[in-house]
Amino acid sequence: MIFNINSIGLLDSGVGGLTVVKEINKILPNERMIYFGDTAKMPYGPREPKQVRGFAMDIINFLNTQDVKMMVVACNTATAVGLDYYQQKFDIPIIGVIAPGAQAAIKATVNRKIGVIGTEGTINSGSYEQALKDIDPDVEVFSKACPLFVLLVENNLMDTKEAKEVAQSYLQPLKNQGVDTLILGCTHYPIMEELIQEVMGPDVKLVNSAKATAQLTKDILTQNKLLYDERRRPVHRYFVSGATAGFERIADNWLGDNTKAFRVDLEN
Amino acid sequence: MIFNINSIGLLDSGVGGLTVVKEINKILPNERMIYFGDTAKMPYGPREPKQVRGFAMDIINFLNTQDVKMMVVACNTATAVGLDYYQQKFDIPIIGVIAPGAQAAIKATVNRKIGVIGTEGTINSGSYEQALKDIDPDVEVFSKACPLFVLLVENNLMDTKEAKEVAQSYLQPLKNQGVDTLILGCTHYPIMEELIQEVMGPDVKLVNSAKATAQLTKDILTQNKLLYDERRRPVHRYFVSGATAGFERIADNWLGDNTKAFRVDLEN
Repeated sequence: MIFNINSIGLLDSGVGGLTVVKEINKILPNERMIYFGDTAKMPYGPREPKQVRGFAMDIINFLNTQDVKMMVVACNTATAVGLDYYQQKFDIPIIGVIAPGAQAAIKATVNRKIGVIGTEGTINSGSYEQALKDIDPDVEVFSKACPLFVLLVENNLMDTKEAKEVAQSYLQPLKNQGVDTLILGCTHYPIMEELIQEVMGPDVKLVNSAKATAQLTKDILTQNKLLYDERRRPVHRYFVSGATAGFERIADNWLGDNTKAFRVDLEN
Repeated sequence: MIFNINSIGLLDSGVGGLTVVKEINKILPNERMIYFGDTAKMPYGPREPKQVRGFAMDIINFLNTQDVKMMVVACNTATAVGLDYYQQKFDIPIIGVIAPGAQAAIKATVNRKIGVIGTEGTINSGSYEQALKDIDPDVEVFSKACPLFVLLVENNLMDTKEAKEVAQSYLQPLKNQGVDTLILGCTHYPIMEELIQEVMGPDVKLVNSAKATAQLTKDILTQNKLLYDERRRPVHRYFVSGATAGFERIADNWLGDNTKAFRVDLEN
């Protein structure tokens, strides 16, 4: 048995990375997590890459003071603009959400037409297209930025009639291209997975990179002998940079937990 | 000539109140303004009334330290949940945006069917309906909360295809009711006035409460001998509680100015 009591650190612009928390919880129920949602600065999607990289580095520096044994950049935008950069600065393992999602999509596709949806930052970076073509140069990739999706999720408006109309408007072009697989290239999107599936139709496989990222987290902890193997019910810790109430409400809905978030101002 | 060099203080959850700044600038070009946009806590619309009142009081307390001679609660939600309360706490004149908008709408309507759009907080408060019926008990009022509009404006997405679809979805019920006048019951909405007019059609009069509020500001400064009458090109000051960049970009577009915003954390 191997024991490492330190936590897994996760970061996102807001509540999106909670989709990764949920998946890690399922396959690593004994691991404790420390989560940072940068709600005061969200959305990351429309920002300059350099700025997002700076925000992510501030959070990683903070998480690094909290006894973490590995970190998950549970945000596609922050992964797209700087994963290599973060990895060079720290000794502990740091993973992103793009490579796991790309691998899962390649496994899932049959007709080799893959759709990718994400923030403007993620789509403009071309990171998914690159990651997919690195594995299989012959796949066709169709990308679409969906900037309103993060706002719908963060403001709890995913169940409205307007959300459905927005989803149809964003997704119809990808349907028309005949993709058989769609990467949810933003950690917020699994929270509205049901709506996306409804619009895309039952034949399109949705790739939730949170699941693939949780599996990679488990593999890395195992390889590095960093797992905590003893049974426990870990109490995760949640930090946000902005108001706590909206975050807690969405976290409660999503994780089915009574989430308490603490506000930290990283600029001080 | 009367001279009072102090400023007009304005507050909003974000950039919305800039529509009032613009209208005050037009009719009181010599007055200096101090503006606070609570961008770290926006949107106010979905929050509890008590919480919004607390946020507004924090800002009013801050503005009160900045040599202001009157204050404009340039936010419908904050007006709806607490204007009387703020007025009781301070000696200087404090006005909101709801009464001026209601008066302008009563003047504008012919068929006495008035539509009101606003945030959930504003619509749920029933403040416009009350203010309209106080003036003319026989008007018919049709209200509709449009929570996505603030997010479209704050994230500079008003010119997208999706914004138009969202607008159609929100506004069609009001069109169906045959309103001849529509109150833009949120200071963010004039920024997307063109789209709203396009959806409602040319026969519906849009009431921009920013204009009516600017006129009331002028009346109150005049009545209280608080005008600054000397010609100058005043430099306004802008404060925000969250990130400055998005605010400045939207302010530049809207005011045609080179806006510099300073970040203030009222919780410290």
